[in-house]
Amino acid sequence: MESGDGFRALDEKSVVEYIKSAPALTARLGGGQLEGVEIREVGDGNLNFVYIVLGPAGSFVLKQALPYIRLVGESWPMTKERAYFEALALKEHGRLCPDHVPEVYHFDRSMSVIGMRYLEPPHIILRKGLIAGIEYPLLAEHMSEYMAKTLFFTSLLYHSTAEHRRAVGEFCGNLEICRLTEQVVFSDPYRVSHFNRWTSPYLDRDAEAVRQDDALKIEVAELKSMFCERAQALIHGDLHTGSIMVTSDSTQVIDPEFAFYGPMGYDIGAFLGNLILAYFSQDGHANEGNDRKAYKQRILRTIAETWDLFQKKFISRWDEHKDGKGEAYPISIYNKPELQISLQQKYMKDLFHDALGFGAAKMIRRIVGIAHVEDFESIADASKRASCERNALNCGRRLLKERRQFETIGQVISVIQEIQP
Amino acid sequence: MESGDGFRALDEKSVVEYIKSAPALTARLGGGQLEGVEIREVGDGNLNFVYIVLGPAGSFVLKQALPYIRLVGESWPMTKERAYFEALALKEHGRLCPDHVPEVYHFDRSMSVIGMRYLEPPHIILRKGLIAGIEYPLLAEHMSEYMAKTLFFTSLLYHSTAEHRRAVGEFCGNLEICRLTEQVVFSDPYRVSHFNRWTSPYLDRDAEAVRQDDALKIEVAELKSMFCERAQALIHGDLHTGSIMVTSDSTQVIDPEFAFYGPMGYDIGAFLGNLILAYFSQDGHANEGNDRKAYKQRILRTIAETWDLFQKKFISRWDEHKDGKGEAYPISIYNKPELQISLQQKYMKDLFHDALGFGAAKMIRRIVGIAHVEDFESIADASKRASCERNALNCGRRLLKERRQFETIGQVISVIQEIQP
Repeated sequence: MESGDGFRALDEKSVVEYIKSAPALTARLGGGQLEGVEIREVGDGNLNFVYIVLGPAGSFVLKQALPYIRLVGESWPMTKERAYFEALALKEHGRLCPDHVPEVYHFDRSMSVIGMRYLEPPHIILRKGLIAGIEYPLLAEHMSEYMAKTLFFTSLLYHSTAEHRRAVGEFCGNLEICRLTEQVVFSDPYRVSHFNRWTSPYLDRDAEAVRQDDALKIEVAELKSMFCERAQALIHGDLHTGSIMVTSDSTQVIDPEFAFYGPMGYDIGAFLGNLILAYFSQDGHANEGNDRKAYKQRILRTIAETWDLFQKKFISRWDEHKDGKGEAYPISIYNKPELQISLQQKYMKDLFHDALGFGAAKMIRRIVGIAHVEDFESIADASKRASCERNALNCGRRLLKERRQFETIGQVISVIQEIQP
Repeated sequence: MESGDGFRALDEKSVVEYIKSAPALTARLGGGQLEGVEIREVGDGNLNFVYIVLGPAGSFVLKQALPYIRLVGESWPMTKERAYFEALALKEHGRLCPDHVPEVYHFDRSMSVIGMRYLEPPHIILRKGLIAGIEYPLLAEHMSEYMAKTLFFTSLLYHSTAEHRRAVGEFCGNLEICRLTEQVVFSDPYRVSHFNRWTSPYLDRDAEAVRQDDALKIEVAELKSMFCERAQALIHGDLHTGSIMVTSDSTQVIDPEFAFYGPMGYDIGAFLGNLILAYFSQDGHANEGNDRKAYKQRILRTIAETWDLFQKKFISRWDEHKDGKGEAYPISIYNKPELQISLQQKYMKDLFHDALGFGAAKMIRRIVGIAHVEDFESIADASKRASCERNALNCGRRLLKERRQFETIGQVISVIQEIQP
């Protein structure tokens, strides 16, 4: 079915013809005949259609955005232009950090189709790996690298103000998808909404308590305003553990369709907050053979290492480029080493507090909002699941309200460990 | 001389033909013949060419932006697209506050020409009125009205997030003019720059002290980042006392070519900061017939009344529209009167501190940066001028560094009064 703008939704049949018509795609398969090529629709969770295309001579993934949210259905329209911003962000972040972003081979704006690298087995979604209790010793190293590079190089620490405003203006176009975040992360969990759900009846009083917590609601309003108003860097916008594919030595960040110029802390918080969710879900996955205690410590170490490495790498980039075109702190003004150090300490402290706030908001919304996480959903026993979720929720509420009191990630880890059923 | 894009700079001769070709303009004069019509080029200070067109049947002002800064000359290019953003802001702010914004009759994007209401005598530039010691008993009332309406109705307190991002994206195009502010307000005064000047040799050590004041430079960096990153509302962007025309009962805000979505405090601070400059300049205008003491108190009362009335009017709008489409604080979440009050108090406190910071930065840059103000420039005796300027500079430095300690405008007034030669 074709709409007026040249768009038609692909299916397993029409996708073959589509591939044949796109030279950049057939080239990946070694030619135009597609003999022996296997095509599988795999979905990507909540929003899009994804086809894996495997041939004897090569492979790729084809992703198509449809003009609604797949999870909800056609009743929740959502511009397919999000594919344009996803492709733009993949290319920009890929240029800045090619080791951790899959290559884009093809983009078709009218069809909202992206062709990109197929992340071959044993790549799996990080969230699934965390549920399975698999160790990823390089995860903190890789994710801190990805975040330090993508955030530093798209901020005013590196950009001139003119190139910054130009890029900010372009990504303002991704407004519908930002609106979705604004509603489901910053609003719905704090009010009665028919989109919300939670493990009922166990968490009924907990969900009610969130809606009655005035101090919490004041803090989340501040974060929402920052999300809506502050164009600090080109953020991924949805950097949870379901947007990362991993093996023991590869970490690949996918799905930046929520990308826009927003607060850096939103990305850092999304990643750390989802690791904290993974931590609190472990008790639900423990069994006689594996009490998950060691793995919980492993997750906490990854959280601490990620922040500490991020901080180190981000500051290194800053030091390397302090004489550059970045206009936040011109060297002609901030010309003494001790002044630079003061600025960096202030910047990182504010960023840390932002990250804790956004991370906490992301945790809360996964317990009492519309979209839940498999970490908890895969715990079959509802009572046990609710108990894990309650711990995560209480942790999120505390971090959100007390975020400005933390000075080190170690203090955050201590709070996480204090929370017991 | 015509460039490829249909632009040609008007002069006193070609402006006649231009007017004849524009029906919206000839209609203002009562027809196409222009008999008895007088045209005068008057300039507008730093950037543009302005013609006053007066006929027996009507009048208007024609303003043309040239592709450079008039004050500096062709060596400092500046996009003439600023006229597009000026026209856009005049129309939007005029719609929101027609009593205090002149009507736009005509806009020609390729020629960068705006035709608008001629503000007839006895309208004069407010700055000149303040230098002359004229009282404006309605000024605080009018300016608080203008700022409350233009800022509230273009913020997320009134806007949906989608309409906000759309407008933010459009005004990101005004990046060159923002860049000018970033350089001349937030950077040059704090470093050695050949654009800077001050009343030398009297203020040589004062200018040097600004460049050596690390605490001040850290604070101004924070304000610069906010200016570059935070799209809080559609601000005028240059709201000093030279952008306001007044009579005893009319107050008209002109020249919003610096308009963009930025921090509200920048506009409020520009106005208040320039009133503080006017206050400190009064000693230089005192003479035997008039010691200006009463007028100084009048200015201080206007400063206090402006903030207090602004606060009251802004909160009134908020209360009126709390059930509206504004998405910063949805009523479905912020549903208790005491919670609303907490949010409002927090919002106004932050805005007050932002306004003091930006106001102070605007004061400092007028003493040691490129563009000075007539309040001081018109003091012929350099030693006396320097003494007035030093008071203003010291006040600005103190307000910038201590802004978060102020809770009321009365406390600010006390600090201003403490500063003596």
